[in-house]
Amino acid sequence: MPATHDLAEAIADTEADALPDWVFREAKRTLVNILAVSISAQNAAPVVALTAWADAEGAASRATVVASGLRTSPTIAALVNGYMAHIQDYDDTHFPSVLHPTAPVWPAVLALAEDIGAPGRDALAAFAIGAEVACRVSMSVHPWHYDAGWHITGTAGVFGAVAAAGWLLKLTPNQLANAFGVGGTQAGGIREVFGSDSKAIHPAKAASNGLQAAILASAGFTGPDDVIGGRRGFWAVLSAAGHDEMALTAGFGKHWELAQNGLKPYANGVVSHPLQDGVIKLRNEHGLTADNVAGIKVYVHPLVLELMNRAEPRRGLEGKFSFQHCAAAALVDGAGHDAQFTDAKVTDPLISAVRARVSAEIEPAHSEDEVRVVITRTDGSRVETYVEHATGSPENPMSDETLEAKFSALVGAEFGEAHAKELLSAIWALDGASNVSQVAKFMTAGS
Amino acid sequence: MPATHDLAEAIADTEADALPDWVFREAKRTLVNILAVSISAQNAAPVVALTAWADAEGAASRATVVASGLRTSPTIAALVNGYMAHIQDYDDTHFPSVLHPTAPVWPAVLALAEDIGAPGRDALAAFAIGAEVACRVSMSVHPWHYDAGWHITGTAGVFGAVAAAGWLLKLTPNQLANAFGVGGTQAGGIREVFGSDSKAIHPAKAASNGLQAAILASAGFTGPDDVIGGRRGFWAVLSAAGHDEMALTAGFGKHWELAQNGLKPYANGVVSHPLQDGVIKLRNEHGLTADNVAGIKVYVHPLVLELMNRAEPRRGLEGKFSFQHCAAAALVDGAGHDAQFTDAKVTDPLISAVRARVSAEIEPAHSEDEVRVVITRTDGSRVETYVEHATGSPENPMSDETLEAKFSALVGAEFGEAHAKELLSAIWALDGASNVSQVAKFMTAGS
Repeated sequence: MPATHDLAEAIADTEADALPDWVFREAKRTLVNILAVSISAQNAAPVVALTAWADAEGAASRATVVASGLRTSPTIAALVNGYMAHIQDYDDTHFPSVLHPTAPVWPAVLALAEDIGAPGRDALAAFAIGAEVACRVSMSVHPWHYDAGWHITGTAGVFGAVAAAGWLLKLTPNQLANAFGVGGTQAGGIREVFGSDSKAIHPAKAASNGLQAAILASAGFTGPDDVIGGRRGFWAVLSAAGHDEMALTAGFGKHWELAQNGLKPYANGVVSHPLQDGVIKLRNEHGLTADNVAGIKVYVHPLVLELMNRAEPRRGLEGKFSFQHCAAAALVDGAGHDAQFTDAKVTDPLISAVRARVSAEIEPAHSEDEVRVVITRTDGSRVETYVEHATGSPENPMSDETLEAKFSALVGAEFGEAHAKELLSAIWALDGASNVSQVAKFMTAGS
Repeated sequence: MPATHDLAEAIADTEADALPDWVFREAKRTLVNILAVSISAQNAAPVVALTAWADAEGAASRATVVASGLRTSPTIAALVNGYMAHIQDYDDTHFPSVLHPTAPVWPAVLALAEDIGAPGRDALAAFAIGAEVACRVSMSVHPWHYDAGWHITGTAGVFGAVAAAGWLLKLTPNQLANAFGVGGTQAGGIREVFGSDSKAIHPAKAASNGLQAAILASAGFTGPDDVIGGRRGFWAVLSAAGHDEMALTAGFGKHWELAQNGLKPYANGVVSHPLQDGVIKLRNEHGLTADNVAGIKVYVHPLVLELMNRAEPRRGLEGKFSFQHCAAAALVDGAGHDAQFTDAKVTDPLISAVRARVSAEIEPAHSEDEVRVVITRTDGSRVETYVEHATGSPENPMSDETLEAKFSALVGAEFGEAHAKELLSAIWALDGASNVSQVAKFMTAGS
């Protein structure tokens, strides 16, 4: 059977009742996390521009945009919410594939569930299934696909959005395969745009295009037999150097990749999280400041230099892709919230001065999750630490308490503490809710 | 200077008054052609499904969908019109690159021009500039990119839509480069979906995404410095086997690729047009029919077998990608309109019987535009012909009379002769019109 049909049958065969409790719980945790970072992003310039575009579309009042409360069509709501979920790089990471699974999937589910009045439990299951598919498509092409220059969150993300929306719409396996065709041929997003407003366009369009593909397929729209495994399909064209067919469906519905998904403690790519952990730990233990530190040396996995070697970032977004800036901000501020990645912060003289003292060396034996940090004081003395697994990694996950603290800090700053608590309660109660309307209500400023 | 900025400056430097008269004329001819085939597609099942989706979006009344007259937002109108323009494979072909330049570009221009009230002459110039950019981006990656499995009409098309909309919005070179980033990272569309409803999604999304990218960039949205030539940019990721930087900008504004763009005489890919020409010529000269023909042998360029070898198409769309069906329909009906590519036609017993008598042999010395056709009669006698350049090729372009005949046949069948004439007059008068409203009015059934 063609790979795409295999996957479509596995999805259609999955019933909500077969999902383990911990998967429902993890689906809620991803929603807590994604709404926190989305709400926190409400005043970012590109979010304002995208929302203005969406408002001017003047679409029917069927789904809700996070924070602004704009009422619009499901495909437009999915687009704007997908953008907000990722613009701060503060969402989550599937460690085996560096995919960010939530941003392309939850926005599609939330908009569709609101539009059709789906029960909260079905929305959670649809998210879990969509995230599973996004992760599996990612694993089937990792690392060849990412190494070729693709941003896997956009390319694999659209398959996740198709699966989630298609499952919620109860598509047949054949309709699902067609939906994968419509959506999968739109897979896109190149790493060249990292550091610009265009990066978050990838999950935004993945969510919106995937949802639209499922809607069109439900109306009879066709794709090819095998958009994934066909001769000119996703594997052949977007991952010519290799693919792993087994990753797509083996154990589907029994094993859940959400266990490998880490929620982010810092508002940037996971690649630098170990070194941020290490610098903050040394800073707090030894009272380090810009004044008493002469040098910060990090021994890292090669990917840190491949993705994040920017000695002189000029804009906030570029700071997120600069290990030098991440380390300097961690030392000076002891944090890595979005506030550490503003334009003002990357051009701040104190941070810039510390940044010039940061250097890296590749340690071939290190995993992506591992770092050694050595800080030299101005008096010549040295302190060092070793991080085996960064906070927010599968081996060292955020606790519910830490997650709620992140949520309260981010949402409280925008909506106030009381409002933040209402939204948090609505999310924790979602599996028993008859629809998603309470979440949709409290995720906006006006409620 | 980065390649993307080079291109952006060339576009911003181009003034409508500098365009030769023949370019305005050719821009009008492409509009005559594209509206004919779009209107003719109004009742195709995927067009009905896509229009239903668009209608349910309930967007503001700012631009017009062809034929149905649905009033919607510019991005949605561009999407539906881009789809209708290509679904019959009856649009046009840029011969040096096999790009179909009109479907991703005119729909973006028409929707935006209607929305902002741009003069007809500016709309024509915007189309010419957008088509030029789509062709040049295509030539910069051809043949490596297409050979890798990409559908160049979607991938290069979005750059054309960005350029056209960006020029019409008077973006600065820097804004244009950002718009290329937002749009270019969405470049997508794989050849696996050929033969399904998903193929025409490529120009549809190219038109819509390109228009949206220009709007977002005008509001300050950023992309990278060089989405085309950067280390992880369009050339590196979507055309790893090679690219030609000079093709992008050399002689921009002096030399126009519209001269290499052929309007289609048959409602399918240009690859089979020489053999359709040849079969129809022999049929008409020698009174050939299904009853007196024992075999049809075509000596073809290798691409015919690479793209169109389908002995037993099951659906109308698949028939368009079957050289066997193209030859059989040409013999039986003497034509290659969309009516020759319906589901009923590909399963018709008479056509199917003739189809089984069609065979091909590769003639390595032939260009893509060249064919020899040998037909053997049931009495054993043979007739043959040689086609050097197919109708609708740059060397053998459709005359205005032939184009008007195609337009009258297709539009007359849907709207009636009188209405078709009104629309044709509005298009021929577009360069003197203060806006595009007459074209927008008469391209709908309700006018």
